[in-house]
Amino acid sequence: MHHGESVSTPTPIHARSGLFIVFEGGDGAGKSTQAALLASRLERADRHVLRTREPGGTVVGEKLRGLILDHGNGTVDARTEALMFAASRAAHVEQVLLPALNEGTDVICDRYIDSSVAYQGVGRGLGTDKVLALNTWATSGLVPDLTVLLDIDPVAGRARRLRDNATEDRLESEPDEFHASIRAAFRALADASPERYLVLNALDDSVALEKQIYARVKKLLETHPGHAANQHPNGSA
Amino acid sequence: MHHGESVSTPTPIHARSGLFIVFEGGDGAGKSTQAALLASRLERADRHVLRTREPGGTVVGEKLRGLILDHGNGTVDARTEALMFAASRAAHVEQVLLPALNEGTDVICDRYIDSSVAYQGVGRGLGTDKVLALNTWATSGLVPDLTVLLDIDPVAGRARRLRDNATEDRLESEPDEFHASIRAAFRALADASPERYLVLNALDDSVALEKQIYARVKKLLETHPGHAANQHPNGSA
Ligand SMILES: Nc1ncnc2c1ncn2[C@@H]1O[C@H](COP(=O)(O)OP(=O)(O)O)[C@@H](O)[C@H]1O
Ligand SMILES: Nc1ncnc2c1ncn2[C@@H]1O[C@H](COP(=O)(O)OP(=O)(O)O)[C@@H](O)[C@H]1O
Ligand SMILES: [Mg+2]
Ligand SMILES: [Mg+2]
Repeated sequence: MHHGESVSTPTPIHARSGLFIVFEGGDGAGKSTQAALLASRLERADRHVLRTREPGGTVVGEKLRGLILDHGNGTVDARTEALMFAASRAAHVEQVLLPALNEGTDVICDRYIDSSVAYQGVGRGLGTDKVLALNTWATSGLVPDLTVLLDIDPVAGRARRLRDNATEDRLESEPDEFHASIRAAFRALADASPERYLVLNALDDSVALEKQIYARVKKLLETHPGHAANQHPNGSA
Repeated sequence: MHHGESVSTPTPIHARSGLFIVFEGGDGAGKSTQAALLASRLERADRHVLRTREPGGTVVGEKLRGLILDHGNGTVDARTEALMFAASRAAHVEQVLLPALNEGTDVICDRYIDSSVAYQGVGRGLGTDKVLALNTWATSGLVPDLTVLLDIDPVAGRARRLRDNATEDRLESEPDEFHASIRAAFRALADASPERYLVLNALDDSVALEKQIYARVKKLLETHPGHAANQHPNGSA
């Protein structure tokens, strides 16, 4: 297999050889907890892993994150909010996610398009179709290989989160009905594409959740060979 | 005409009784100069006038303006740039333009959607249709009553601007070819809808330009009665 030219030419890497996994769910659902557990599992399996979050992940994206989530930036109407999230996401995809996935790094991301569809499309009433179309354009159509939805009653989620941190950002401080509509929106997205979702009860024990998530992720590793360093010439990793 | 009830009930004001006029054109074309001259003409004609600019005009919009135009916010890719402009514009329309127009104030705005179509759609190559659709959504379809295009050779415009201010923002510092494509894009937009545009040679004398602009604006005043204080019960202002 090792011809002279392949020594100097880099191995052509299959586009998106990295796995793209997103955690979605309300505040306090356990997204950060499970993202960290999955990342360390994948690292133990010799995968290159990038953990990242939305909105943010780039210089301009982190500044947008502040504009979106902090109190004190004046009135932020629904369309403006949706467009700032989409702007932050576009930068994240272009500068962080696509380069990582293309070089074979697995990306684990806290929130992605579904959060905009749920919060701005449903919660703010802009419509799921419009918000989805906006974000499909912003992300050049990059869809996660798997979205793990940690489903939780928003009252329970808020109580869990408030144990850690008593301050609430601009979205967290919305009333319970708002968060209930978000929960329903997430579930509707998962129901529409079960092959790309894993829906779990966020009240389950962390260890039990971790196992279910890794069982599903493991199946996807075969079709996403990962980083070039892990790839053997005959294709078996 | 003065019945008892009309004293306490405000006169029903025709939606968008104010005129919405936009100035477009490259850097140094004379937009700010002509916007100021038109504003004072309209004020002398007893109209209520609001002068405003894009991006900006709201708390969140001014912060976005800084993120978009300042150097030093890291890489800003084309989609992110287009989405930040659209976010700023959405806030501007919702919080500033529509309330003013609905109460009968004439709005004179430095740059609007056409600048995004030209700079991001053509200059950055995102496509005019996509950028127009994005901005139509962001602005709930608010279209100017008249757009005055001050057409100028970008080299002449840059020279004129540099006399006042030697520093260039992130867009101004793009090369001449970029600005030449912007000029062509503005002209194409005007050619496609001549009834909503006035295209002028920006190298003409300021006073001559002002006269041509006001001659065109004056015709529009009749169909846009302006502020309630100017409206007489029999409809003649
Ligand atoms: N499965 C779980 N059972 C009980 N508590 C959990 C579980 N997962 C997370 N937590 C706790 O709930 C809180 C919120 O978890 P976190 O991972 O930060 O949620 P999110 O990132 O979704 O907001 C933390 O205190 C965390 O330790
Ligand atoms: N018609 C004109 N003829 C000559 N100079 C002009 C004319 N209009 C504006 N200028 C000058 O050109 C420069 C740029 O004008 P300005 O109104 O700030 O342009 P813009 O707002 O389009 O960037 C200023 O120095 C202004 O005084
Ligand atoms: Mg978290
Ligand atoms: Mg100006």
